Amino acid sequence: MKIFVASKNEHKVHEIKLLVPKFVELELIKTELDVEETGETFIENSIIKAIEYGKDVVQPVVADDSGLCIDVLGGFPGVMSARYMEGASYTEKMESILQLMKNYEERTARFVCVATYFNPINNFLISVEGYVEGSISREIRGTQGFGYDPIFIPNGYEMTFGELGEAVKDKISHRSRAFKKLFELLIKVGELKEES
Amino acid sequence: MKIFVASKNEHKVHEIKLLVPKFVELELIKTELDVEETGETFIENSIIKAIEYGKDVVQPVVADDSGLCIDVLGGFPGVMSARYMEGASYTEKMESILQLMKNYEERTARFVCVATYFNPINNFLISVEGYVEGSISREIRGTQGFGYDPIFIPNGYEMTFGELGEAVKDKISHRSRAFKKLFELLIKVGELKEES
Repeated sequence: MKIFVASKNEHKVHEIKLLVPKFVELELIKTELDVEETGETFIENSIIKAIEYGKDVVQPVVADDSGLCIDVLGGFPGVMSARYMEGASYTEKMESILQLMKNYEERTARFVCVATYFNPINNFLISVEGYVEGSISREIRGTQGFGYDPIFIPNGYEMTFGELGEAVKDKISHRSRAFKKLFELLIKVGELKEES
Repeated sequence: MKIFVASKNEHKVHEIKLLVPKFVELELIKTELDVEETGETFIENSIIKAIEYGKDVVQPVVADDSGLCIDVLGGFPGVMSARYMEGASYTEKMESILQLMKNYEERTARFVCVATYFNPINNFLISVEGYVEGSISREIRGTQGFGYDPIFIPNGYEMTFGELGEAVKDKISHRSRAFKKLFELLIKVGELKEES
């Protein structure tokens, strides 16, 4: 069966494609629709995207909202992760975060992702959260992944997501955990079936 | 375990209480919060209520949004069911609907309910739809139930929900079907457990 991904971020779509069951065909939504992420939380934005795009294509869709939450900054940038310093590159955003964190020894942080599936035909929707605990590095390291990956060191590792790359992210990342859980539940409740 | 019902409608809460598993204790939310139902669809309003009340009490909540959709009126009153002729009694609302329908032979309609569970602690959310097909009666009949029950005759019956009362609604109503499915799924995915 075919599911649309409600995202214009190709990196994200690539990551999600690695996680879906073999019988699911993921397709990027081609639409002019621009959804405003007006929610206060990851789950709200994730659901807003899933419902708006789902109503648009009238087919099952998956969406996610995710971000980096740094403890000593009160969870910042959080839901603002993508929109922080709008227009700036991620290198500039990460430099700014490292600058803000310069005098802090406490560097604990987590990547959070809420993944949502919405089927507009039977009005079934499910949202689940995945997260990975870690800490903020002292400098930008690595060129793999995207977003804030080069300053996030997951617990149990010494390298950043930017250095560790796809194979590790595929196993332990917030997005990987959220989407794996989501597809497991969709199969468990009978919403996704191999034969359909 | 305890789940809060995100509704100020006591009839609705009473109906839902009959449907939950024995180990679940449903409690009415006592809050000043007034949630604006800004969605275009039942699922959007159901989720808005669940998330807003869930964020407020920081405990698992259930919410629903429901309404009567009349085919010949293009699905009207639909999401506007509760707000149609705001301030008027349901007797006045039903009289107005019967007046609108006066010249129509085609009287098919359905009651639709989207039930949502939201747990703000693990950011898990699930929404399911239940519906019951039927037709609009020629006059207001019966005093049981609430809302538009006295003008809705479910398929397979000759009496309205207002005449049939609780025992039948408990079996076949849109709300009953949505909440039964919701709690079944919550148990199936392990979100609700008898021992917790």
